[in-house]
Amino acid sequence: MTNTKYDVAGIGNAIVDIIARCDDAFLSNQGMEKGFMQLIEAGRAEKLYQTMGPATEQSGGSVANSIAGIASFGGKCAFIGRVADDQLGKVFAHDIQSIGVAYDTPPSDVGLPTARCFVLVTPDGERTMNTFLGASTELKPADVDKQVIAQSQVTYLEGYLFDKPEAKAAFNEAAVTAREAGRKVALSLSDAFCVDRHREDFLALVRGGVDILFANENEITSLYQLNTFEDAAGAVRAEAEIAVLTRSEQGSVVISGNETIEVPAAPVDKVVDVTGAGDLYAAGFLHGLTAGRDLDTCGRLGALAASEIISHIGARPEKNLKSLAQGAGLLG
Amino acid sequence: MTNTKYDVAGIGNAIVDIIARCDDAFLSNQGMEKGFMQLIEAGRAEKLYQTMGPATEQSGGSVANSIAGIASFGGKCAFIGRVADDQLGKVFAHDIQSIGVAYDTPPSDVGLPTARCFVLVTPDGERTMNTFLGASTELKPADVDKQVIAQSQVTYLEGYLFDKPEAKAAFNEAAVTAREAGRKVALSLSDAFCVDRHREDFLALVRGGVDILFANENEITSLYQLNTFEDAAGAVRAEAEIAVLTRSEQGSVVISGNETIEVPAAPVDKVVDVTGAGDLYAAGFLHGLTAGRDLDTCGRLGALAASEIISHIGARPEKNLKSLAQGAGLLG
Repeated sequence: MTNTKYDVAGIGNAIVDIIARCDDAFLSNQGMEKGFMQLIEAGRAEKLYQTMGPATEQSGGSVANSIAGIASFGGKCAFIGRVADDQLGKVFAHDIQSIGVAYDTPPSDVGLPTARCFVLVTPDGERTMNTFLGASTELKPADVDKQVIAQSQVTYLEGYLFDKPEAKAAFNEAAVTAREAGRKVALSLSDAFCVDRHREDFLALVRGGVDILFANENEITSLYQLNTFEDAAGAVRAEAEIAVLTRSEQGSVVISGNETIEVPAAPVDKVVDVTGAGDLYAAGFLHGLTAGRDLDTCGRLGALAASEIISHIGARPEKNLKSLAQGAGLLG
Repeated sequence: MTNTKYDVAGIGNAIVDIIARCDDAFLSNQGMEKGFMQLIEAGRAEKLYQTMGPATEQSGGSVANSIAGIASFGGKCAFIGRVADDQLGKVFAHDIQSIGVAYDTPPSDVGLPTARCFVLVTPDGERTMNTFLGASTELKPADVDKQVIAQSQVTYLEGYLFDKPEAKAAFNEAAVTAREAGRKVALSLSDAFCVDRHREDFLALVRGGVDILFANENEITSLYQLNTFEDAAGAVRAEAEIAVLTRSEQGSVVISGNETIEVPAAPVDKVVDVTGAGDLYAAGFLHGLTAGRDLDTCGRLGALAASEIISHIGARPEKNLKSLAQGAGLLG
């Protein structure tokens, strides 16, 4: 993996999170399944916003969060994803560019506003998400800068992109470009319901074009329609080069060929908001991998980044992850 | 104070805060005076935003923060202030309306965007602010709903409004309306530099039309151009009905006629961000006052609210202040 300009290029939905606290009753009154993400249309977004409490706005998007995390570790990154030419779009672009990430996707001009995700955080720290994809659905194959992909060690793709046909086409184009350039492709399954919507596509990718797969327990059992984590882990071992399976407070398991590496979760004083836990785990793992670390260290970097993100509101790191990792003896 | 619809009506700048962390070197490189607020124009706002790190957006505005605090205590409030018809304006309106505050000022249509304040938080928790007033300068006397003012026990006015002539006229109109209706007028001096810009006006108000004055140590010494807190406290005692002087970790002093009530600061585990400390102190005090509590309890409610706000990023309360106050034995 020499002669690369970037460690990781991420392609995903460009979203601003609108984060509010609520109680469990609010979720059930609104018919929401706690802990999951659902897609909503403009009208529902408007109505939900009117109903929910005061909020904080912060850049989000699953793979964009991971890219922000890798940048905080000191990695070189690019991001591809579509916003609109509006205030939230400017917020998204500012936040990712200001941490040194190359982000040059031109804003959409078709009228859909920048994507937003209403993140509802319950007192237990669990988050329930409602996403209006807006302008991010306007990502097209032509937006994938092939030079960027060819110059990145790893191209990291978001499963959520499969929810819209053009974005899915952009995703596939990026994967092909990366493979042709001899680079690695990583995929996040994003969400168990997302897996349910696109199971055959994801299985084909895991079998054919993905080198590193990120999934949590719900997602991997949903992918293989198996009942236990152990069975699903066995199934993915036969198919993926590296599978990284996260299990919340039970830590994570890295599977590669005959290797099985169990990584404990990093300790947290108080879980404030789990939003971005998986995204930041992926950030730590991919930073370790592109910096040439062994799989155990990659997993520990992932666990460390996840522990930082769940200790505060929002899915972008507040502390410098490189310093944190150096303090923990994981990076020199 | 019977037959009122609202406990407090607030009039102030309607601002969204853009909050980022930075180190002390950033402040000096940018020529900023730590701990103060300065006004900036559109071009400087653009440039500063490009220079600063990733941010979080949250509704702000000094008196608007106080009103949000009073609402969190369970008080009935109204707010008057101008946003533009843009995304940040919608954010501001949502956040204040969603907590039950009556907010009906129509958005401005002259093209200036909603006001934003770039809040730079250094590792010691101190905040340094750069405000682009934008649409909030379009507040005019006609925006002051006289019925709202006449139906509010207290009208709370922001010193910052004096920075623009039309807003100042709106301020004066509100004060006259409140007095004519037999209601109380409260004023926050906002900032020592703001006092410097408008000293004569503020002195005339304290002498003539204000019942409750909020100031910190810098502001009150600047107002009277005296060197010590004690001298300034003596000067204000002769002129204001109630003066509430805050002194950060040294607590606060409530002065009224012959009374001098010293209120200790409420304990905080870790000061994360002092933004809004004065605003939330005023919230607690005004809630106590409009609920008929004695001045000592008013001060303790203020200290409690201030301690909540400085323990996290942002100037809007994260915890329910009524529950906090009940837990502390300050409200039944």
